[in-house]
Amino acid sequence: MSNTTNQSWGGRFSEPTDAFVARFTASVDFDRRLYHHDIRGSIAHATMLERVGVLTSDEREAIVQGLGEVEREIEAEQFPWSVELEDVHMNIEARLTEKIGITGKKLHTGRSRNDQIATDIRLYLRDEIDVVAAEIARLREGLIELATREADTVMPGFTHLQTAQPVTFGHHLLAWQEMLTRDHERLLDCRKRVNVMPLGAAALAGTTYPIDRHVTAELLGFERPAENSLDAVSDRDFAIEFGAFASTLLMHLSRMSEELVLWTSAQFDFIDLPDRFCTGSSIMPQKKNPDVPELVRGKTGRVYGHLMGLLTLMKSQPLAYNKDNQEDKEPLFDTLDTVQGCLKAFADMVPAIEAKTGNMFEAARKGFSTATDLADYLVRAGVAFRDAHEIVGQAVALGLREQKDLSEMSLDELRQFSDAIQADVFEVLTLEGSVAARNHIGGTAPDQVRAAAQRARDALATLQQEA
Amino acid sequence: MSNTTNQSWGGRFSEPTDAFVARFTASVDFDRRLYHHDIRGSIAHATMLERVGVLTSDEREAIVQGLGEVEREIEAEQFPWSVELEDVHMNIEARLTEKIGITGKKLHTGRSRNDQIATDIRLYLRDEIDVVAAEIARLREGLIELATREADTVMPGFTHLQTAQPVTFGHHLLAWQEMLTRDHERLLDCRKRVNVMPLGAAALAGTTYPIDRHVTAELLGFERPAENSLDAVSDRDFAIEFGAFASTLLMHLSRMSEELVLWTSAQFDFIDLPDRFCTGSSIMPQKKNPDVPELVRGKTGRVYGHLMGLLTLMKSQPLAYNKDNQEDKEPLFDTLDTVQGCLKAFADMVPAIEAKTGNMFEAARKGFSTATDLADYLVRAGVAFRDAHEIVGQAVALGLREQKDLSEMSLDELRQFSDAIQADVFEVLTLEGSVAARNHIGGTAPDQVRAAAQRARDALATLQQEA
Amino acid sequence: MSNTTNQSWGGRFSEPTDAFVARFTASVDFDRRLYHHDIRGSIAHATMLERVGVLTSDEREAIVQGLGEVEREIEAEQFPWSVELEDVHMNIEARLTEKIGITGKKLHTGRSRNDQIATDIRLYLRDEIDVVAAEIARLREGLIELATREADTVMPGFTHLQTAQPVTFGHHLLAWQEMLTRDHERLLDCRKRVNVMPLGAAALAGTTYPIDRHVTAELLGFERPAENSLDAVSDRDFAIEFGAFASTLLMHLSRMSEELVLWTSAQFDFIDLPDRFCTGSSIMPQKKNPDVPELVRGKTGRVYGHLMGLLTLMKSQPLAYNKDNQEDKEPLFDTLDTVQGCLKAFADMVPAIEAKTGNMFEAARKGFSTATDLADYLVRAGVAFRDAHEIVGQAVALGLREQKDLSEMSLDELRQFSDAIQADVFEVLTLEGSVAARNHIGGTAPDQVRAAAQRARDALATLQQEA
Amino acid sequence: MSNTTNQSWGGRFSEPTDAFVARFTASVDFDRRLYHHDIRGSIAHATMLERVGVLTSDEREAIVQGLGEVEREIEAEQFPWSVELEDVHMNIEARLTEKIGITGKKLHTGRSRNDQIATDIRLYLRDEIDVVAAEIARLREGLIELATREADTVMPGFTHLQTAQPVTFGHHLLAWQEMLTRDHERLLDCRKRVNVMPLGAAALAGTTYPIDRHVTAELLGFERPAENSLDAVSDRDFAIEFGAFASTLLMHLSRMSEELVLWTSAQFDFIDLPDRFCTGSSIMPQKKNPDVPELVRGKTGRVYGHLMGLLTLMKSQPLAYNKDNQEDKEPLFDTLDTVQGCLKAFADMVPAIEAKTGNMFEAARKGFSTATDLADYLVRAGVAFRDAHEIVGQAVALGLREQKDLSEMSLDELRQFSDAIQADVFEVLTLEGSVAARNHIGGTAPDQVRAAAQRARDALATLQQEA
Repeated sequence: MSNTTNQSWGGRFSEPTDAFVARFTASVDFDRRLYHHDIRGSIAHATMLERVGVLTSDEREAIVQGLGEVEREIEAEQFPWSVELEDVHMNIEARLTEKIGITGKKLHTGRSRNDQIATDIRLYLRDEIDVVAAEIARLREGLIELATREADTVMPGFTHLQTAQPVTFGHHLLAWQEMLTRDHERLLDCRKRVNVMPLGAAALAGTTYPIDRHVTAELLGFERPAENSLDAVSDRDFAIEFGAFASTLLMHLSRMSEELVLWTSAQFDFIDLPDRFCTGSSIMPQKKNPDVPELVRGKTGRVYGHLMGLLTLMKSQPLAYNKDNQEDKEPLFDTLDTVQGCLKAFADMVPAIEAKTGNMFEAARKGFSTATDLADYLVRAGVAFRDAHEIVGQAVALGLREQKDLSEMSLDELRQFSDAIQADVFEVLTLEGSVAARNHIGGTAPDQVRAAAQRARDALATLQQEA
Repeated sequence: MSNTTNQSWGGRFSEPTDAFVARFTASVDFDRRLYHHDIRGSIAHATMLERVGVLTSDEREAIVQGLGEVEREIEAEQFPWSVELEDVHMNIEARLTEKIGITGKKLHTGRSRNDQIATDIRLYLRDEIDVVAAEIARLREGLIELATREADTVMPGFTHLQTAQPVTFGHHLLAWQEMLTRDHERLLDCRKRVNVMPLGAAALAGTTYPIDRHVTAELLGFERPAENSLDAVSDRDFAIEFGAFASTLLMHLSRMSEELVLWTSAQFDFIDLPDRFCTGSSIMPQKKNPDVPELVRGKTGRVYGHLMGLLTLMKSQPLAYNKDNQEDKEPLFDTLDTVQGCLKAFADMVPAIEAKTGNMFEAARKGFSTATDLADYLVRAGVAFRDAHEIVGQAVALGLREQKDLSEMSLDELRQFSDAIQADVFEVLTLEGSVAARNHIGGTAPDQVRAAAQRARDALATLQQEA
Repeated sequence: MSNTTNQSWGGRFSEPTDAFVARFTASVDFDRRLYHHDIRGSIAHATMLERVGVLTSDEREAIVQGLGEVEREIEAEQFPWSVELEDVHMNIEARLTEKIGITGKKLHTGRSRNDQIATDIRLYLRDEIDVVAAEIARLREGLIELATREADTVMPGFTHLQTAQPVTFGHHLLAWQEMLTRDHERLLDCRKRVNVMPLGAAALAGTTYPIDRHVTAELLGFERPAENSLDAVSDRDFAIEFGAFASTLLMHLSRMSEELVLWTSAQFDFIDLPDRFCTGSSIMPQKKNPDVPELVRGKTGRVYGHLMGLLTLMKSQPLAYNKDNQEDKEPLFDTLDTVQGCLKAFADMVPAIEAKTGNMFEAARKGFSTATDLADYLVRAGVAFRDAHEIVGQAVALGLREQKDLSEMSLDELRQFSDAIQADVFEVLTLEGSVAARNHIGGTAPDQVRAAAQRARDALATLQQEA
Repeated sequence: MSNTTNQSWGGRFSEPTDAFVARFTASVDFDRRLYHHDIRGSIAHATMLERVGVLTSDEREAIVQGLGEVEREIEAEQFPWSVELEDVHMNIEARLTEKIGITGKKLHTGRSRNDQIATDIRLYLRDEIDVVAAEIARLREGLIELATREADTVMPGFTHLQTAQPVTFGHHLLAWQEMLTRDHERLLDCRKRVNVMPLGAAALAGTTYPIDRHVTAELLGFERPAENSLDAVSDRDFAIEFGAFASTLLMHLSRMSEELVLWTSAQFDFIDLPDRFCTGSSIMPQKKNPDVPELVRGKTGRVYGHLMGLLTLMKSQPLAYNKDNQEDKEPLFDTLDTVQGCLKAFADMVPAIEAKTGNMFEAARKGFSTATDLADYLVRAGVAFRDAHEIVGQAVALGLREQKDLSEMSLDELRQFSDAIQADVFEVLTLEGSVAARNHIGGTAPDQVRAAAQRARDALATLQQEA
């Protein structure tokens, strides 16, 4: 049991905190990660306090100096973190006061830990969002380049995991890129709402000191001070919004991972991943496992879970700050770590994907992938679409019985299903003809893929300039 | 068991669908809700097909006429919905063909149910988002007006549900308004990403017909055609984004609900809700229950659940369309119904909230809510904040023992804790003085509340103009 | 707007409920599903009231008679359901009173809607659990029979979706069966906790009438009355427990579904599903899509979502009953419908799965699936396992370069990696030898599969007898 | 970048693992927590291998000795954990081989990391479940004792947070106890399914070595070996079941927490929590915050989140083991830590709760809490219940207008609503009379509370004996 009451709120208390309770309720083990942003926020606060006359210039100087020393201690891993001081704020302030004396205590004038922590998290998250955005951009670039390289590579397109129609591998990769484009936009939309400053809300109602919140906001690069003190200290919707962004991103990465796992299986065998992105088995010497996509797929769960945790956390909380909110940090931090790790792994790995183009082509040749082309051919010859569909269905049924693809049937065989079929039908039954014919915006034709890649490149550049 | 194979895909099949499977896999019971948007999309598609020469003018005319009849039948509840026709698309197309003959079958040229359903949902969701946005605006307006009315009403501000500092009721209401402002912005950000057109993606790869997707997009009011056909038919991230918006909104409404429930309890007794928003008990004749906020709080669960359901649905799905995606509609529809119902209930109810200002004031007077003001007073008299905090803590401990508030102590009693306390201390210990002193942007001072309400009014107007 | 105050709680109210609020808060649209169990509970309650002297024999008789008429009206769809009467209870009671006069009003003596609804749900859920249990048993039986039939069929066993070691298809099917065994047990554990009677808890505190809860419990087949009235009306953990069971079951079904989808792909081509369990495409005439497993996989999301919804619903609710709890029914009902539908679809489909044994065998022959057997062979020849692993790894690397399986290498080729390899090595490199050698409880050897199937059959019989 | 390929699976690989990938995919940072159970499992495995003749007695002895040394190194924090060795298993085995030479490599005979990790987690979880069960029992005991002490204390019972009927505080506490009883039972049901041994499943198919799994199971205290090797290495439903137990427990604790927070507010003021379970504010000197219940309420989110994470993780995973499963451990570990911390905090705190019985009684006196008693009185006098309800509703309406409770009205005032009211009515309008009259099993009468407490005590003893 701690043998004194806590220095930051002790006067009213007649017995010290229970030792287990002190550990159970302390946050310093995880919120110390915020030390840099806490110090940065304190320096801005002190600077503002000087400008409005609450601190003297010397006091501010001593504080800034002292905080610099504290930060260096932390970075040198020589800082005496203490659970009894509860959190990163009290740890740093107590150390500052040890260093510079009573002036250190003045730093807390006009603020509270409630607005301080809300400010720290936003500063921290804003910086981390920028890291995330850079990794998304790198992954998008990798996909665009690979798509450009593979614009002519034909592979089977699937629906229901059944061969549907031939597509180009470049087109498939750009589908991934589109998903990430929206995630990128969502991230930047989220950043706007993160970049608002709680500082000055104090405990919940604002403060009686003559603070100037515009000054602090400008010093910290915030777009503006938060409009309402009760809201500023109590809401965590920005963390939820980030969690929703991250969940959607991981959802997308899980889909790419699923496909990478399928494609590296012996059954698909569409791509090769370099050994350095795979691991083996302690018991089966032949194994080469696509660990990275599997693990990313698995990490989807933790990110969804954190989103659900944050939503649950905030449900039904009365205003303003409640201790519950201390639980916002670990899910947010772990989400950030996971998102950054998964993006880095993918951004490193994607350019190293090697398409086994022969296998892809062969797979597309099977499974009647040009059946739709035959139906379309019939329609152009005047048959109503639904009737053409029926005719081709019967031809496929024959093909299944006799194990031959449509392009392997003779003209006579095909004509037994419809007189509208002529010798030129075989042109539309080739894979190259099929993909080239889907030649409109959004279609799989190689020319469209190259044009789409260029538009994607431009859009990415624009987004990065705006950010 | 259906005694024929399904007309839309039968040719390849040797036995009809199992009757239970037909029911189990059909979606018409819930996707018929999309009928209007399906027809609207079909009319635009037919118009585009005419422009590019795939349909004649007469064919288009017949289709548009026929679809109009179909729509009227549906609205008159005289439409023969059939589970064997699986979904809204096949039901409408089959009926159209009954009406106008073989031309009806041509409508499906150059599209697939995969891009059709993705288009229908987006058209539908876009319209519903506009309804949601209007209700949020109405609720925000209600809060701003009530806040303006109650700008001077003093109530206790809570942290940890313990009396913290006095705030104004108007300030508290504007905290709610701020939450909704961000939800409103998130909704409009989501709308941007909804408003992109999948049509033309066909089954997954685009189509060989000479379609012009820009024409269709313009006819349907979409901002642009989707960039990639595989992505367009398979992703549902826009529904997840709406679900995340809705979850955050319900989280906020659950917080407001929690407070309304607290405030109508006999223990708080801060407000009155008119009888028309409450219900009674079948067994306890005295009860008047705040059913609306309770129910809204409870509905938070279903909205969170739908978000989690949609995230789970999409996890690990390989491209492109899989049958799994049929499961996107019910959670989305129920989320929309829930959000609209809850917002309407709140927007109707909020203006009718009656503050019991006397009770609020009395509650604020208790609980040493001006203790921070005393500490700030001491700081202004030259005491370091942390020391002032300790001094006031001791005064509070006395107050607890003797059951008197700080403002009820004599000057002598107060001075035993610090010589710095003078006769003017009683000015800062009043509730009015306390709230008025928090007079900076975001603070609880009545003037600040009025100014914030005006800014909120302006911001809302701006947002609505831009939308 | 309803023009009178609600008859069940009106006296204290000065204005009628707002019309929208009445609709918004009414539950009769979904809780009418409970009508049979509500009436059953009412009959038991009336019978008990007679036994303890609160009702006369004639009164009880009139009530039972009247409720019978009401039930017949409902089943004939001639019952005048009314939203103004809020819920199933008031609808039935009001109709009863219309039929039998003032005696109908006495039925509510000693109970409240709070304990009534809690009782109805438990009665209903208990019956539905029995339906679910029967379907699980049917699916388990189907798997055991199919596993017995396919006990000798060799297929590749996968880890990381890479070929790992040969297994038997029967063994794989029994893995599914084991998952379901645990789900079955969890369901019966849940049933124990469902089968406890809230009736008699009244609104929250019990009742002043001389009720005998043991009598009612016995009449309704409950194991015992609930121990605490506050708990009985307010908790919904039994619904959460059912939701957790259902989520785990759907998780398992999603895994089976994923494999069925993989196995019906052109790339795997391990099984055939009869046409009656599949559907086709409106645009691609060749498609035969495994809709049932896809849809079941997709329905996992809704069941997870409902679990999360129920957990959220109950989070932080103070005792005892709150209106929030009205939200327990829809997720529970939809979970039941989904579970029953998915189980029925699977139980119908599983016996119709046709193994393509030739394809399975060929797939197992590739991918060095007997590499572990070679390593084990080396260990038996005195090589340490980790060294054997390294030796085989090198042999596999050669095989990859030269595109030949281990069993296709000559003895000399193999011996260049280790002198310990002798001519008898080829026996362990066959697929049949490999699977037969894993001949211990839980292993994949055909004899073990047959023995395990028999144990599973016995265990199922035992579980069903106990239930 | 590691400059050699990983020793446990290197032979087939031509380049080392990428350094980031090595870190990203390694699990040793969190799975080292399993070291004791890994070693325990290895000792049992070695012992079994000796019995079946795979190891000599000396080899087994060396292994056991060596593992003992390893364990001591770990506990002395002198163990050289290495990320390049991936996980706890390879770290321990490599160190063992350093110590005892080639014999160390033989330990892996007949097993794989896939069955090893599944066994470790189950052994670990089984031990931790026993700790959780003990803490639940301690909390239940605390509640039973407090309930016994407070069996006669009257407080308002709430529905919809509106005063409903008087109850006893003991009765309320036993409601909490009932929730925990079911959680306790669920935990023990879960333990049964955890206590099954995967070891012997090897990588996925069993092993060719002549292992005896019954021996190992007995040595490790497992009830039996798992029936199917594929299932044994791949399923994690036992972790999900524990997560569902934990979520339900935290849901219950969140409800208790919510009430503790309400009750310590100035508005309710029903109880006092000792200072040692509370904390203060850095800015508001008067605050005493109920941190423990707030934090427990907040921790509900993380536990729900982990459950959702685990469910997502397992969704759609094909058999058998996939790398995804590495993600099972962190949510499970954090769930365990959270559950144990929350239970300890509650079990410590509950006996220290001090009821402010005067405040509770006064609160119950208000709010017409005996209105139901008046209605029941009228029924006993021959009025139909629904009519009695209406009569009392009118009396309450008068009371609201004139601000007097029912018991404060004169007989004449009361009789204006019904002639059936006589002078003896005032007996039923007292709080003591009201609670005492609910005198049946599950009712709130003090005698019933004492009897229920005794039954709870007995049931707990029985459950603990059986466990």
